[in-house]
Amino acid sequence: MSLISLLTDFGLKDGNVGVMKGIIASIAPQAQVIDLSHLIEAQNILEGALVLARSAPYFPPGAIHLAVVDPGVGTARRPLAAQLGEQFYVLPDNGLITLVLEQAESQGAPIKLVHLDRSQYWRREISHVFHGRDIFAPVAAHLAAGVPLEALGSPIRDPLRLAFPRPQPIPNGLQAVIIHVDHFGNLSSSIRRGDLTEHAALTIRLGGIEIRGLVETFGERPPGELVALYGSTGSLIVAQVNGSAARALGVGSGAPIEVTW
Amino acid sequence: MSLISLLTDFGLKDGNVGVMKGIIASIAPQAQVIDLSHLIEAQNILEGALVLARSAPYFPPGAIHLAVVDPGVGTARRPLAAQLGEQFYVLPDNGLITLVLEQAESQGAPIKLVHLDRSQYWRREISHVFHGRDIFAPVAAHLAAGVPLEALGSPIRDPLRLAFPRPQPIPNGLQAVIIHVDHFGNLSSSIRRGDLTEHAALTIRLGGIEIRGLVETFGERPPGELVALYGSTGSLIVAQVNGSAARALGVGSGAPIEVTW
Amino acid sequence: MSLISLLTDFGLKDGNVGVMKGIIASIAPQAQVIDLSHLIEAQNILEGALVLARSAPYFPPGAIHLAVVDPGVGTARRPLAAQLGEQFYVLPDNGLITLVLEQAESQGAPIKLVHLDRSQYWRREISHVFHGRDIFAPVAAHLAAGVPLEALGSPIRDPLRLAFPRPQPIPNGLQAVIIHVDHFGNLSSSIRRGDLTEHAALTIRLGGIEIRGLVETFGERPPGELVALYGSTGSLIVAQVNGSAARALGVGSGAPIEVTW
Repeated sequence: MSLISLLTDFGLKDGNVGVMKGIIASIAPQAQVIDLSHLIEAQNILEGALVLARSAPYFPPGAIHLAVVDPGVGTARRPLAAQLGEQFYVLPDNGLITLVLEQAESQGAPIKLVHLDRSQYWRREISHVFHGRDIFAPVAAHLAAGVPLEALGSPIRDPLRLAFPRPQPIPNGLQAVIIHVDHFGNLSSSIRRGDLTEHAALTIRLGGIEIRGLVETFGERPPGELVALYGSTGSLIVAQVNGSAARALGVGSGAPIEVTW
Repeated sequence: MSLISLLTDFGLKDGNVGVMKGIIASIAPQAQVIDLSHLIEAQNILEGALVLARSAPYFPPGAIHLAVVDPGVGTARRPLAAQLGEQFYVLPDNGLITLVLEQAESQGAPIKLVHLDRSQYWRREISHVFHGRDIFAPVAAHLAAGVPLEALGSPIRDPLRLAFPRPQPIPNGLQAVIIHVDHFGNLSSSIRRGDLTEHAALTIRLGGIEIRGLVETFGERPPGELVALYGSTGSLIVAQVNGSAARALGVGSGAPIEVTW
Repeated sequence: MSLISLLTDFGLKDGNVGVMKGIIASIAPQAQVIDLSHLIEAQNILEGALVLARSAPYFPPGAIHLAVVDPGVGTARRPLAAQLGEQFYVLPDNGLITLVLEQAESQGAPIKLVHLDRSQYWRREISHVFHGRDIFAPVAAHLAAGVPLEALGSPIRDPLRLAFPRPQPIPNGLQAVIIHVDHFGNLSSSIRRGDLTEHAALTIRLGGIEIRGLVETFGERPPGELVALYGSTGSLIVAQVNGSAARALGVGSGAPIEVTW
């Protein structure tokens, strides 16, 4: 049985996600569909790329990730499909693929990219404003139903890549930014476990406060305390025990964070 | 494999939608269930009818649409099931069916309506306040499991219909209203593509501003600009590029909109 | 086909629920997954226990309820699995099981509890912060795939139980609290139908107002009126017809409510 994950910025109230699933069910009735998120911030391609890259590794080989955060819908931006390692992606060529593509490259995994230019795999009528429905969902469904990637479009090698913020060295430390605020108000930074050789005697500064040292998990400290730790996908995060660090510190995506040792 | 779509105003936090799915799984374990929306505004039958009518055409033949926006639950309003063309509907008789019924009538599609009055297809105990669980979900599941529509209730021909606002002619134009605000803050009007013979030199007025001409898609104009265009289901909409027209204009459902040529 | 329900406080935007489903699909591709709620208030174990206990009875025998509201993740709190009657539960040992366990006990249903201490049924790497992904989802999936409960861990008999507020007798009445505010703003109290022998001439006091008598359903009274009635799972609730009692009264969880006769 094939599996399609869905990630969009469409929200949950207007029926658009349901419409994409209705189209998938028409073309590939046996496909299992799993929602990753439909609450990516509107038009925020970076956030979409991040959630996609954090989630895809937990899906089985053969999974098809259908991702639509698409402010350029109906313009010249290309629709894409890709095979990265053992998984597949169907998405607009606007940078959404950047992080999963980098993951595949760093692992030396097989990479194939096609420009979706074969309209026989789309809906017959293509609107200017909803390619999730008219192009991406039908293409993902045809892929799930067994159409090979190569049949869906012409090979390309130049997908658009977005620049993600990387930590910058400072004397005895790193300067970085908050790249994601999760549902709990935990603040994820652009610093990853591998960026730091020293993990014990760190000082973390953001939002005008200072945290000394890392904990392993939330429950080590009393409710209300601000802590720094590695999140479940290896990012350095700042959290408030049983609370929201984002609210406590008045800090959001893009805020600077500094780590010194 | 049969397919049931779900549309309600139940929200996503209380488990009520999950309960309906648990009941469906008990009666029709092979049925595939797709969420259309559970964030219809509380008790807003018009919005439910609109999202249902915009979504159903993208579902395959045989799909069963289970729709529960039901302020009259437990009163004398009838529970209904319908076959409209090749799809099925299970819903309260409060006008929720209006737009999909009109679509079927305008297409000359076959129409069958039954009053759900056969309690053997319901749960044994019927509450006064949650017929989604006690009547509608079990009936939809029995339909998915192969019970014919005719067995579920007595034929009727007088479903309740709601009056939807229609555009009114004014000198050189149309006077209409905003009927839906989507997740992005795009404002959908009651004017449809077919209502206008002239599409080029239009002037659109709402919320104290004026937009000249239509665009084909958002990306044609710079972020922040207000534009008018046809949405993905053919309504005239007003949008802010990469923003929220609803917020920018302080305008919501029911607001007047005027188009002149 | 096996069925897994999911209940968490993870929200819907970060992909964490999708990741759990990806892991389930890897281990038990035929399992059907149904969302109960992912909008349990962050770290609110009582609310999670309540929604779980209200929903589980509507699921078929064999259903596996995977519930993760887990402020103590990564600390010494045990991971559990249970068979209660004909259904299964996989969840942290922090009281989340309290109400479904009490239901099973009051029905004299078979009860088995195991401490999940067999890491061969977990992911290979276990984070300190996301046991939903690393322990609970894989265990639920193995259970769905046919691994017997007894194989997943060692039997225990002392699960943690939380104290839920019970109504207290007062002269000619009961003193209780609001235990849940639903999506519509309906206020559920800790008083259940069976707690009251008299149902006709009741007076309900909360939020500085007084309601006389119960109605059977919302539509009996005009929009805007405050009413008291039994909810769909037997709790005494206070609602505003076509409105939000929570907003109208400025009342939330924990607020006192008094019923006299």
